Amino acid sequence: MNLSVVHTVWELRQALKTIWRSELLLGFVPTMGALHEGHAALIRQANRECGFTAVSIFVNPIQFDRAEDYELYARTLPEDLELCRSCGAQLVFAPATEEMYPAASLTHVQVSGVTDYLCGQHRGPHFRGVATVVAKLLHLIQPARAYFGEKDAQQVAVVRRMVADLNFPVEIIGVPTVREADGLALSSRNRRLSPSERRDAPALYQALLAARAAIEHGSGPAEARRDALAVLASTPSIRVEYLEVVDDESQTPVSRIDGPVRISAAVWLGSTRLIDNTTATPPRLSRSEGGAPGQRL
Amino acid sequence: MNLSVVHTVWELRQALKTIWRSELLLGFVPTMGALHEGHAALIRQANRECGFTAVSIFVNPIQFDRAEDYELYARTLPEDLELCRSCGAQLVFAPATEEMYPAASLTHVQVSGVTDYLCGQHRGPHFRGVATVVAKLLHLIQPARAYFGEKDAQQVAVVRRMVADLNFPVEIIGVPTVREADGLALSSRNRRLSPSERRDAPALYQALLAARAAIEHGSGPAEARRDALAVLASTPSIRVEYLEVVDDESQTPVSRIDGPVRISAAVWLGSTRLIDNTTATPPRLSRSEGGAPGQRL
Repeated sequence: MNLSVVHTVWELRQALKTIWRSELLLGFVPTMGALHEGHAALIRQANRECGFTAVSIFVNPIQFDRAEDYELYARTLPEDLELCRSCGAQLVFAPATEEMYPAASLTHVQVSGVTDYLCGQHRGPHFRGVATVVAKLLHLIQPARAYFGEKDAQQVAVVRRMVADLNFPVEIIGVPTVREADGLALSSRNRRLSPSERRDAPALYQALLAARAAIEHGSGPAEARRDALAVLASTPSIRVEYLEVVDDESQTPVSRIDGPVRISAAVWLGSTRLIDNTTATPPRLSRSEGGAPGQRL
Repeated sequence: MNLSVVHTVWELRQALKTIWRSELLLGFVPTMGALHEGHAALIRQANRECGFTAVSIFVNPIQFDRAEDYELYARTLPEDLELCRSCGAQLVFAPATEEMYPAASLTHVQVSGVTDYLCGQHRGPHFRGVATVVAKLLHLIQPARAYFGEKDAQQVAVVRRMVADLNFPVEIIGVPTVREADGLALSSRNRRLSPSERRDAPALYQALLAARAAIEHGSGPAEARRDALAVLASTPSIRVEYLEVVDDESQTPVSRIDGPVRISAAVWLGSTRLIDNTTATPPRLSRSEGGAPGQRL
């Protein structure tokens, strides 16, 4: 299958015109490049489910809270295109910054509530930048389905909220996180870790698993959080930015656990920030815990 | 021609499904109801230019800065539907408030810059509410063209900015203001004027014409503004909220006039607020005014 690569909005419209008019289901995978097996899983799933798969590769400046992080973000276009091709994508849109943000741009999309905690609390205008660029890309590509990695669970929640609130005609699909053999979630930022930081990094997922185990054994959020932080405390190179048990839709910390929850964390190893998350479901509430029948619903 | 009237998002999608798949150009006229000849001009133009015309009728609560204005806003659905039918519309979408804003809604579209002056300065979150509801309606209707009245010139500028910045796949068409014989711009709010206020109201347009004449004779913005305010001062029942000479794209007051400008004003008659505007083009700069050749461009 041929892969078309376009860099301007005009070229993109030319490339998609016949697809929009066809009966083909259009799948879309937005990325910032530096593609890895996590992105490959997104593209392969889109390719399985849709008749045409478009990928965007754009390092979105307005979602970075630190200029250094933006500058250091890996740019690996030739390798990215090879991965897109091998996963079955038919189109890559790789615009320049000025193509996406002409000087006159003055519009932002703001999702409140879902962005109050976790990365939203620590990364300033990050999710405003995410929501704005995703809105732009959805208008440019006009896909029927868009695929996002669950590693960025709060991002998925923000995009789902935006799509529902603004009535975007698109279905958002969350795709499970892909991990290294030792549990470390794949991330473009992993390549910045020193060898010793890389050895320590899996403690992040171990901590999340500890919290999950606690919840599955009936612990509340405070206890689960304590168990997870204990794991991280045994790895002195790791600094914790946040670790919370949240409701997945609202991305708000829960004070008690009545159903499935998400455990999300951000940590620093040296100057590299890693995030990860997992879900956990409590055991059925037993009568001895005093749960009224209604609380199970 | 039959007119379909739908009230829910689900019904709307059913009604438009075949239109989206067809080759018909879909035209859209968003309104808040209380339709008059100004709206009729929008619908007729859409009907002339497009193969299918959809009208929305929705009094958007989040664009009102005063609860009283929202409550007093005229609701005249039966007459509105008759006008839509007579102007050639094929579909009316008239949703309930909860259909457009379910309780969980958390997303807004914010356009800065263009909203810093005029109504943006005096009506708080007004244009955030406008941009948000227009974004929603564009996603729900997915028109090729959307028609807006130039009486709300700042609204047109905000929508144009949003559409360009967020890459909405739609063309925005501004339609000239329709006026009564005495010059008063048609507005749903005119019906709230008392007989004596109605007699005084045309002074607003007279003032704009005075500013236009001044500009066409070579006056600068300060002088044009002074001439317009003198007209309004002779009608004591009118209180001026703002009257400015602005650049039409940025909706920002100009300090000198190098090309076409817009003169925009908001005034109060009793408890009714009216807005109006007109454009003006200066005479060619003569050498005696010291204009360098480059300034004409």
